[in-house]
Amino acid sequence: MPSLTVSLSERSYSIDIGHGNLDRAGAFLSSLGGGTVSHAVVLTDEHVSSYGYARIVADAIADAGIDVSLFVIAAGESSKSIETAATLWETLLEDGTDRKSVLVAVGGGVIGDLAGFIAATFARGIRFFQVPTTLLAQVDSSVGGKVGINLPGAKNMVGAFHQPVGVLIDTATLETLDATQYACGLGEIAKYAVSLDAALFERLESDAADVGRRDRDILSEIVFRCCEIKAGIVANDERETTGFRALLNYGHTFAHVFETLVFETLGDYRLPHGQAVAVGCVCAARLALKLGRVDTAFLERQIRLLQRLDLPTSLLDLGASIEPKRAVDLMNRDKKVENGRLRFVLPIELGRCELVGGIDPRTVMEAIECDT
Amino acid sequence: MPSLTVSLSERSYSIDIGHGNLDRAGAFLSSLGGGTVSHAVVLTDEHVSSYGYARIVADAIADAGIDVSLFVIAAGESSKSIETAATLWETLLEDGTDRKSVLVAVGGGVIGDLAGFIAATFARGIRFFQVPTTLLAQVDSSVGGKVGINLPGAKNMVGAFHQPVGVLIDTATLETLDATQYACGLGEIAKYAVSLDAALFERLESDAADVGRRDRDILSEIVFRCCEIKAGIVANDERETTGFRALLNYGHTFAHVFETLVFETLGDYRLPHGQAVAVGCVCAARLALKLGRVDTAFLERQIRLLQRLDLPTSLLDLGASIEPKRAVDLMNRDKKVENGRLRFVLPIELGRCELVGGIDPRTVMEAIECDT
Repeated sequence: MPSLTVSLSERSYSIDIGHGNLDRAGAFLSSLGGGTVSHAVVLTDEHVSSYGYARIVADAIADAGIDVSLFVIAAGESSKSIETAATLWETLLEDGTDRKSVLVAVGGGVIGDLAGFIAATFARGIRFFQVPTTLLAQVDSSVGGKVGINLPGAKNMVGAFHQPVGVLIDTATLETLDATQYACGLGEIAKYAVSLDAALFERLESDAADVGRRDRDILSEIVFRCCEIKAGIVANDERETTGFRALLNYGHTFAHVFETLVFETLGDYRLPHGQAVAVGCVCAARLALKLGRVDTAFLERQIRLLQRLDLPTSLLDLGASIEPKRAVDLMNRDKKVENGRLRFVLPIELGRCELVGGIDPRTVMEAIECDT
Repeated sequence: MPSLTVSLSERSYSIDIGHGNLDRAGAFLSSLGGGTVSHAVVLTDEHVSSYGYARIVADAIADAGIDVSLFVIAAGESSKSIETAATLWETLLEDGTDRKSVLVAVGGGVIGDLAGFIAATFARGIRFFQVPTTLLAQVDSSVGGKVGINLPGAKNMVGAFHQPVGVLIDTATLETLDATQYACGLGEIAKYAVSLDAALFERLESDAADVGRRDRDILSEIVFRCCEIKAGIVANDERETTGFRALLNYGHTFAHVFETLVFETLGDYRLPHGQAVAVGCVCAARLALKLGRVDTAFLERQIRLLQRLDLPTSLLDLGASIEPKRAVDLMNRDKKVENGRLRFVLPIELGRCELVGGIDPRTVMEAIECDT
């Protein structure tokens, strides 16, 4: 089983990746440094619970001689709320959680972000263990320590940086993802490839068909590589203070405004995040092309890979459209703006990118317009 | 004006102490490292607001060319709640708070703890500046980075370690404290003296009358010394992981159970914390005497100092009483228990203490019984 060690300023933790390894959760908690684990709380949602993953994790922890409780909350983004957090804080208190307890998140990004925030704040911080069960959470949100909940109208506005004590990734859980959930993970994987790892890009090009049918060995290697890339960047800018961590955001400035505008326009419909990222990557490449930073071949090769991975390359592929002017207005309200000029992560060449400031909003609008 | 630099693993901040120096808040924020301050939010409560302190601080910040908003919440412990936190998170969002903003707490421990928790969690952490206006907050809660809110029945159960970027102490604000608030601060000062600084103890003995009439020069020196002691201990155990920080808790294990039991017995009445600490220090000294760690002269000298400072030395002085058995039962449920044996911070000699484990609950009960 591949294992990766993530080193941060104060400590390190390991990421274990395997197939059918959920039952290793107990051994993992037993081997933790930083004091004996007296008690564990497993948190999952109703959807993930229906596959039995959290039960396997909880049973493995109990088998290791650790008191364990299992709590199941409603699935979906609406659980990342102050109300759910309040309920969980009180549930943990009633359950006897103390500073020797570990909170175990079994699920996708919502469960990981929420459980991480609860762990960051209960008793001023308890240990937190991640068992991500979606491709998106495995390659992205479970690594890096960003945790939080939403305020009405503002995603992740309340949160913390709270690193897990470990991450256990079972690629067998990917078999139960629906097509959209799986595509969301692939969107982030493509992002890593284009902006940070040319070798991964070439690997995806040659193995796109195997990736499409969820080949376990290839998936395991790809997930491992994405965790490695992210961990390397996070280790150099854990709290997002130097700008280096922003390099993980290729395509994301576009994706975020697409998600917001489509949600505003279509009422209750949310663009799947990883798919929005795929379209955002195309817009970012198009912007780089307009700025003379890459050539047409770069843009076309990127689009071709996304298509081979069955990812959207235009909002039209997702049945959505937006007004470019409104997208840029929204970007202007975002915290990434400095003096009315926009900043983007843009490619230098395949697998390398940089943060570029001072971009004229009209050029950004043009990069979006081609998509509408 | 005395200024103290607090050094922690990652960074340092300064504590400025003076008389009538609230209007230096603007200069203080302007001189902060870590990026320009674009915007400040001053948080205070209705009681402190009535003396105009927060207005002076906000005006000084505005005079320094920084956008500032002032929010006033209800006074009292009940504001350290999830509900108030939720309101404040949304207020900050509407007010345009971002990662370049600073949250400024003007008030006592409740405001400092609450504002610190909001600052620790809004946008995954923004800067936080403390302007403590009670003696208790000046010598204790404003230094050390412990922030948080209460759950029903569990004080400070949700929180974080979030160090301020600076602390501005105006001893002129102490002139408006009522006798109980002032006594609460003195209780913590006496705790520092007995357990951590013999020179401070002797100073308090000789200057008790001047301390009683709130002599500004002596107060300034004493507040400075207490901050220095606390900062030194916190620097060695910022997150309470080594046990060293526990040395700040002389008298507190007793004080906490006294507060809980009196609240349970007398309904809505709360023992003032610093006064409970004074009584707790007497019980701790009595426990040390029973264990043969100090002599009767030590206990009597400590009681005499507390009396000179007009502090209670027995729960009876506070019009309260408790059952020793219930106090010990409650201690047993606390997280400081290991294998049914109790742990206490106990004196070695005047100004020196240590954490002592394995104490027989019956001896603890006897130390309390003398008080009832």
